[in-house]
Amino acid sequence: MKVNGVALRPLRALPDGLGVEVIDQRLLPHRLQMRPLGSAREVFVAIREMWVRGAPLIGAVAAYGLAMQARRDASDGALANAAALLKGARPTAVNLAWALDRVMRVVMAHGVGRRADAAWAEADAIAERDVQVNEAIGRHALPLLQAIAARRQGGGPVNVLTHCNAGWLATVDWGTATSPIYQAHAAGMAVHVWVDETRPRNQGASLTAWELGQAGVPHTVIADNAGGHLMQHGRVDLCIVGCDRVAANGDACNKIGTYLKALAARDSGVPFYVAMPTSTLDLGLADGVHGIPIEERSGRELTHVSGRTASGEMVEVQLTPDGSAAANPAFDVTPARLITALVTEYGLVPAEAGALRQLMEERA
Amino acid sequence: MKVNGVALRPLRALPDGLGVEVIDQRLLPHRLQMRPLGSAREVFVAIREMWVRGAPLIGAVAAYGLAMQARRDASDGALANAAALLKGARPTAVNLAWALDRVMRVVMAHGVGRRADAAWAEADAIAERDVQVNEAIGRHALPLLQAIAARRQGGGPVNVLTHCNAGWLATVDWGTATSPIYQAHAAGMAVHVWVDETRPRNQGASLTAWELGQAGVPHTVIADNAGGHLMQHGRVDLCIVGCDRVAANGDACNKIGTYLKALAARDSGVPFYVAMPTSTLDLGLADGVHGIPIEERSGRELTHVSGRTASGEMVEVQLTPDGSAAANPAFDVTPARLITALVTEYGLVPAEAGALRQLMEERA
Repeated sequence: MKVNGVALRPLRALPDGLGVEVIDQRLLPHRLQMRPLGSAREVFVAIREMWVRGAPLIGAVAAYGLAMQARRDASDGALANAAALLKGARPTAVNLAWALDRVMRVVMAHGVGRRADAAWAEADAIAERDVQVNEAIGRHALPLLQAIAARRQGGGPVNVLTHCNAGWLATVDWGTATSPIYQAHAAGMAVHVWVDETRPRNQGASLTAWELGQAGVPHTVIADNAGGHLMQHGRVDLCIVGCDRVAANGDACNKIGTYLKALAARDSGVPFYVAMPTSTLDLGLADGVHGIPIEERSGRELTHVSGRTASGEMVEVQLTPDGSAAANPAFDVTPARLITALVTEYGLVPAEAGALRQLMEERA
Repeated sequence: MKVNGVALRPLRALPDGLGVEVIDQRLLPHRLQMRPLGSAREVFVAIREMWVRGAPLIGAVAAYGLAMQARRDASDGALANAAALLKGARPTAVNLAWALDRVMRVVMAHGVGRRADAAWAEADAIAERDVQVNEAIGRHALPLLQAIAARRQGGGPVNVLTHCNAGWLATVDWGTATSPIYQAHAAGMAVHVWVDETRPRNQGASLTAWELGQAGVPHTVIADNAGGHLMQHGRVDLCIVGCDRVAANGDACNKIGTYLKALAARDSGVPFYVAMPTSTLDLGLADGVHGIPIEERSGRELTHVSGRTASGEMVEVQLTPDGSAAANPAFDVTPARLITALVTEYGLVPAEAGALRQLMEERA
C-alpha cells in the first residue's frame, strides 16, 4: 500500500541479504520510522515488544530472523535454538510456528554451507506468498460488500466494522480484514469503516485509522464499547476481523474483545466474517475456546498510555490509581457458532470442522 | 464512604445555604479537589462538563442548582428558565428531570418569598433520600453475593464485574452497583471486583478503581474488551451495573458498552443485574432500545486522553492520527431480556413491564 503516495511495506528484506527493515509500529500514528533488524535475537525482541505485530507479519519476520541465524551459524543446534527462541516470542498466533517450521524443513534438507541462501529464499517465498494470499482473501470477500452495495442502491456507503488491526501493517501487504475494503475502495465503491479503538494497545486508533487515512478510505474511530449500540441501530452492515489462530472446530482466536463484537453481531443479525489465511489454521487443536493459549501481557499496557502532546512530544501517562492491579489477556476466542464464514485465500469456508478438514485435504 | 479514613461525599451543601461543594471528578484518580458551585449556571457547567456525573448525583446537584436560583430570583420565569437550562445539561439520565420536577413542584406551591428555603430543603431531602435508597439497594443485592459465597465454600473470592462507575462518586453516598460490594466487604466476605476501564472517559479505571482502593476492596482493572473472555472461562460470578434510565419495558440505558457485557453474561450463563433507584425508571417511555435519547459527546473524549506523567504532571495526549474522525455515543441500551433482575430500593424486580408497573403502583 502507499503512504504519502509512495509504496511501502511494513517489512523489507535489505539488499545485502543480511537483515530486514521494519516499521516500528509502536510509534504510529505519530511517527513513521523504519528500524533495521540484523539478528535472530533482534527479531525476537521486535516481535515480543511489538515493534511488529499481526499474525501474518510476525510469521514472515520470524522466517527472516531464522535466515539471519543461518548466515551466522547454520549448524543444527544453532538453528534449533534460534527457532525455539523465536517461537517463544508470542504464544498465541500459530503463523509464527508455521513459518519457522517451514524454514526449518527447507534448511535441514541442505548441507550447512547452503542453508543460509535456502533459508533466505524460503523467507522471501513466505513473504511473497503472504501478499498473494491477502490479495486473494480480498478478492473472495469483495462480493460480500458488493451485494450490500447493490441492495443499498445509492443510500449511503457500505458500513464495515473491524476490530484491532488486520490491515497491511499486520501482514506483508494488503492486510487480511482490510483487503476487501481496499479493493472495494479502489473499485469506486462507497465504503465507510467503523474502527474499534482496540484497547489496550489501541491498534485500531493508531494503526487501522492511520492506514485507512493514508489510503483515503472514509472511517470513524469508535470506542470498543460502541459497536453493540451501532449494530443494534442498523449502522453496521458487516463485521470483518483478522485472527491469530483458528482451531479445527472453527473457533477463532483474535485480539481481545473480538468475541464481544461477534455476540453483538449475532444479536442484531449482522454478518460476522473472519479473514483467515490458511497458515492461521491449527488443525492439531480440536477446540479453540478451551485449547488456544491466551497470552497474558503486562498490566502496564492498560494502566499507562502513550500519545502525542499538543507540542508534538511523545509522552506516556498513567491512567489508573497507584496500587490498582490490572490484568491484560491479549486475545479471546470467538466460538465458531458466531462466525458467518471464514474468508480464506481459497474462498469462503464455514467455520466448521468437516468443511475445514475437507478444504485442507483438497489443498494439501 | 471514607477517603484516607475521613468520611467524604462527592456533594456537600455549604453551611451558608448559598452553594454546594463537589469533587471535581475530572481530576481523579490523580488529584482529589473540591470545587464550590454558587449558581444554576455553574451547576449547569459542572454537569455538562462532567465535573460531576452519575445519574443519581447529577439529579441531586441539579436540585441544589435550582435552589441557588431560587435564592437569587424566585419568580416563576426565572425558575422555569433555570430548570430548563439544567435539564438540558445532559439528555440521557432521567434523574436530572425527575429531581428538577420534584423541586419545581414544591417551590411553585409557595409564594415567591418562601421558595428559596423550600427549594433548598427539597434538595436536601433528595440528597438524603439518595443515600437511603442506595443503602437499601445494597441490602437487597447482598444476598446474591452471599449465595455465591456459600456455594463456593472457601474456594476464593466472589468475583463481581462492573462497568463504568456506579459507585459512591456517582451518587450522594454508597453508589448503586457498588453498594452490595461495600456491604459485603464490610461484612467480611471475600469479594474481588473486575473493573472495566470504561472508555472513552475511563470512569472505571479512574473512579471505580480509586473508590475500591480507598475502601480496601480487592479489584483488578481490565480493558472493556476483556470481560467476555473472563466470563467464558468462569472467572466472573456476577455482573452488576448502574443505569441512567430504565424504560417501562425494562430496557436499561447505561454507559456505552454495558450491552456488550450483558450479551457475554447471557452467553456464559453469568447473572446480570442492574442496580436501579426507582427515580431512574421512566414509565412514560414504552421501549428503551428505540426510545431513550442517546447523548453523542465530543469525539475528543476518544481521540485524546489525560493522565499523569512520571513527574506528576497532568498531561493530555492525542491517540489517533490527525484527520481521523471519531464518534462517541455515550450510552447504550441493554434489552430487558438480557437482565436477570433490576435491584431497586424496594427489592429485586424482573425487568418486565407488568412487574415494573405493579411496583410503582404499590409504592405510589
